[in-house]
Amino acid sequence: MRTFSVPVGISNRHLHLSEEHINQLFGENSTLTKKKDLSQPGQFAAEETVTLIGPKGKLEGVRVLGPARDETQIELAVTDAIKLGLNISARDSGNTEGTPGINISAGDKKVSLERGVIAAMRHIHASEDDALQYGIKDKDMVKVLFEGPRGGILHNVLVRVKSTYALDLHIDTDEANALGLKNGDTGTVIIED
Amino acid sequence: MRTFSVPVGISNRHLHLSEEHINQLFGENSTLTKKKDLSQPGQFAAEETVTLIGPKGKLEGVRVLGPARDETQIELAVTDAIKLGLNISARDSGNTEGTPGINISAGDKKVSLERGVIAAMRHIHASEDDALQYGIKDKDMVKVLFEGPRGGILHNVLVRVKSTYALDLHIDTDEANALGLKNGDTGTVIIED
Repeated sequence: MRTFSVPVGISNRHLHLSEEHINQLFGENSTLTKKKDLSQPGQFAAEETVTLIGPKGKLEGVRVLGPARDETQIELAVTDAIKLGLNISARDSGNTEGTPGINISAGDKKVSLERGVIAAMRHIHASEDDALQYGIKDKDMVKVLFEGPRGGILHNVLVRVKSTYALDLHIDTDEANALGLKNGDTGTVIIED
Repeated sequence: MRTFSVPVGISNRHLHLSEEHINQLFGENSTLTKKKDLSQPGQFAAEETVTLIGPKGKLEGVRVLGPARDETQIELAVTDAIKLGLNISARDSGNTEGTPGINISAGDKKVSLERGVIAAMRHIHASEDDALQYGIKDKDMVKVLFEGPRGGILHNVLVRVKSTYALDLHIDTDEANALGLKNGDTGTVIIED
């Protein structure tokens, strides 16, 4: 068994928009305005927010992340989805086959999304150097241990390796709250050889 | 190492009220009206609901559980508490020293609670027969394993033994959603001797 430490980054509910949907929601030829950089290089929180409208409720002020993507994707905690009346499952980013849709509004503009609402599968971002150093590779599944009064071990944590990534464990608010974690806390990756 | 199976019961946010607070919120000499029995014998969900008002937000339709208790106690998921603007910690039931207060309203009646908002520490209810059969005792701390795509192991699960208890693992909505659990799913208790 080998172990190494990762910093915890908690993802609040958010969405990624296609250029087409950015134009439909914020006006023709509009672009996202950067509010602040995120831990992964090139990614940013935008000034733009939307309202998500599901069959049972709505969520206001949901943050758009940039840059634009090929396909619109909405990442919620399961707690959020239950409030909206949606049944979502944990998916790797981009795997939206068979996922529920939702209505997205910004001011008086609206987009009706046919699919793309997921619970992001918990995952570790790692650079190629990190992967070499820690003996992991893209698509590995590992376990991560957390200490503390609400400690425990999360299984099935997906490893994603890319030269531009910074080492970071991304979990959602349900996972963080269940385990008593805050941004910047540390988890211990467990690799069972 | 020994193991045994427990059924999972998910506690939505709820509160227990003292007789004094029942009278203040629902009228002099009022009592709670049973809506349905809960898994633990004698405990019930009441018809009565309240609004919880915190420094940053409010939650409507929060269910009162009966019967009345000596002290009012509000059990929230951390996700709920963040919405209300409260910083809560995982506590054993009844251990409300140093916990935040909140305003409770029902119609035009209001109670200002000085303390008593907690995240219930995850726990297993077991009868004395269960305890004998599975080799556990009151106040033991055990681990519980869950299978599935969001599986994992929760540490520091408190054992509570009482003759009237039915075997049940109680977790909150954050814990259930983080681990992909539904009511009636099964966990495996792990006892490391």
